Order: sequence, then C-alpha cells, then structure tokens
Amino acid sequence: MARETVLDSRQEILRTAARLFQQRGYDATSMNDVAAALKLSKGGLYHHFQSKDEILFEIMNHAMEITQERVLNPVLDIADPEERLRALIRLHIEVVIGPRDREITVMLHENHPLPPALRRRINSRKKDYVHFLEKLMAEVQEKRLGDNGKVHRGGRKVSPRAAAFALLGMLNWIYQWYKPEGELQAQNLIPQFTELIFGGIFA
Amino acid sequence: MARETVLDSRQEILRTAARLFQQRGYDATSMNDVAAALKLSKGGLYHHFQSKDEILFEIMNHAMEITQERVLNPVLDIADPEERLRALIRLHIEVVIGPRDREITVMLHENHPLPPALRRRINSRKKDYVHFLEKLMAEVQEKRLGDNGKVHRGGRKVSPRAAAFALLGMLNWIYQWYKPEGELQAQNLIPQFTELIFGGIFA
Repeated sequence: MARETVLDSRQEILRTAARLFQQRGYDATSMNDVAAALKLSKGGLYHHFQSKDEILFEIMNHAMEITQERVLNPVLDIADPEERLRALIRLHIEVVIGPRDREITVMLHENHPLPPALRRRINSRKKDYVHFLEKLMAEVQEKRLGDNGKVHRGGRKVSPRAAAFALLGMLNWIYQWYKPEGELQAQNLIPQFTELIFGGIFA
Repeated sequence: MARETVLDSRQEILRTAARLFQQRGYDATSMNDVAAALKLSKGGLYHHFQSKDEILFEIMNHAMEITQERVLNPVLDIADPEERLRALIRLHIEVVIGPRDREITVMLHENHPLPPALRRRINSRKKDYVHFLEKLMAEVQEKRLGDNGKVHRGGRKVSPRAAAFALLGMLNWIYQWYKPEGELQAQNLIPQFTELIFGGIFA
C-alpha cells in the first residue's frame, strides 16, 4: 500500500470512530462497531490501531495537529500582534464550525478517560496553545496600552491569562450551540467575537 | 422515611453517580457500581431511580435547578440591567468553581446519549437560560447605547445573541482549566471576566 493510502485509511478510521463515539458514547462503542462501520475485518482495524484508547488518543492528537496547521502556523509570520490575534480568532472559528473536521475537534473537549500517559501528552499540547495565546494577549495589550508589562494609567484590568482562557471558552464552546442552519454563521460570528474581545459588548 | 431524608438520599445518589461517571466514564459505570459506592443494595438504588438514564437526566436537571436558584432567581429583582448582568456573571462563576456542586454542573456539558425525550427537556431549560441572557444583553446595550433596538452611531457591533453565547462559553468553559490551587480564583476571575465583557481586553 502506498504511504498516502495508509494515511488516508488512518484518517478515515479516526473520522468514523469519532462519529460513532459521539452518536453512541465512547464506552458503548466497541472496536467491532468501528470495524463494521468501516466494512473492515477486526484484524484489518487492529492492523492500524491496537486499541480503542489508541484511537481516542489519535483523534485528539489529530485535532491538535489540525489546530497547529490551520490556526497557529498561518499566524506565526504576522508581525503585528493585533493582526495576529484577529487572524487567530478567524481561523480558530473556521476550524470549529467547518464541517470537515468538526467530529474530530469536538472530541478534544469531552472528558473521556484516557490512560494517564496519553492524557498527559494531549494536555501538554493544549497547554502549549494556551501559552501561545497568553503571550499573544500580552503583546497585544502591551502594544496598545504601551505599558511594557506594567500597569499603566490604572489599567490592564484583564490579565493576558484571563483573556486567553476567556477567548478559548468563547471559541471552543461554539460547538455546544452552533447550528449550520442558524443565524450565526462564520461571516457574522467572526467579526462579532473579534469586536467583543477587543472592545466588549459596547464596542 | 421523612421527606427530607428522601431528598437527601436522592441528592447523595446524584452526587456520587456524577463523580463515578466522570472518573470512569458514563457507559463504563453500571447501576451496580453506583449502588456499591453508596453501600446500597441494587434494590435500594432502584427504589430511587429506575435506570442509569434517569440518574443522568436527574443530574442534569438538578444542575439546571442549581442555576435557577443560585444564579437566576437572585438577579431577577435587580432593576438596573448592567448591575443585573454583573451579578449574574459573579453568581454563575461562583456556581461553576464552587466545590459543592462542581461534579453535578460539569455533567451538563458532556455529550452523553440521553433518550430523545429527556434530552429535549434538558435542552429546553438550557435554551431558556440563553434567552434570558440574550434579553439581558439587549437591555444592557440599549441602556448604555440608547439605541432602542436600532443601530446607533454605526454601533452595536456585537448582537445580544453573540454576546450571550460568548459569555456562556467563557463561563461554562472554566471547568476545563480551573484548578483550586491555581492563580485565577473567584476574587480575581470575576472582576476580570466582567471587565472583558463590558470593555474587552483593553478595558
């Protein structure tokens, strides 16, 4: 099998497994169920993944890869911190509501029991993203408020860390309410969430 | 058994079941496990709840009761919309990070398969909360921006609906990162999230 075909099969398995986990619950879905949905023999599935834990870990890991490739990498070269933050908000929303990988990225936020070593690896990647965002928030505030990290004119009432967690909550919560047929879609959600971050509800 | 004792037992069962569901996964936890953790006979447990679905539904329903009693009811009489919103943010954060009911409220956000009729009842209560918040955001904006629901000075860039979902995301996401020993605690988290909602990251 060519390398690409192997990669495609793995992604296809992850996507199908993610869909089943959401529809039926993680524990209630067996390796047999995943194999059957893919019209694979159980042996064919075990050829790719040794356990359901491994599939769950790879789904979450893949979700973090997607974030790296489609949110972080494209913004790294943007010199102006405010523009970098605006681009990050846009790209993150596009990943969250994009139909292509919604099943995969949703799995990041469900509290399924992973073996501790695998859980630590996912949590460490999540922490890297939080730290990137926290640093970016600090740069954005510093540039606009010119405070060189110190409190200026009584200001900086919102710490970079609180701002990072607030933004992550706004963005990662979208999957809880988003409907493809609803009135809030990418083209109005992106500017509204961006305005809220930069200027609050009275922006 | 006095009515109060029955109520206490039910809450004790819900709390214990919620803890087990989070530690081991919902599907992997059996009615036997719940009974054993409570030192109840299986018959004793079935006396209170007929099925695991019923327990899950009652946990979620109880979480919505808690929101009603400790977030919504206390703010209903606050005449000024801005003060009402500030109080709601404070009370909602206190419920989310309070140790007393964290196990219960977390269950609201996990995507466990509930029978459709029960799922609809929970979703309908969640929607009521979103609508309350959306209406409140509209009142707050209207009072400050004085636009009587119309666009004023090119403004109201953030719709009440987007603002409501953004705030819910910020608040309900807290359980994903909150640590009782971390630097962000109620006393600094509440003012920071409040400032961010009213004035953005440059507040």
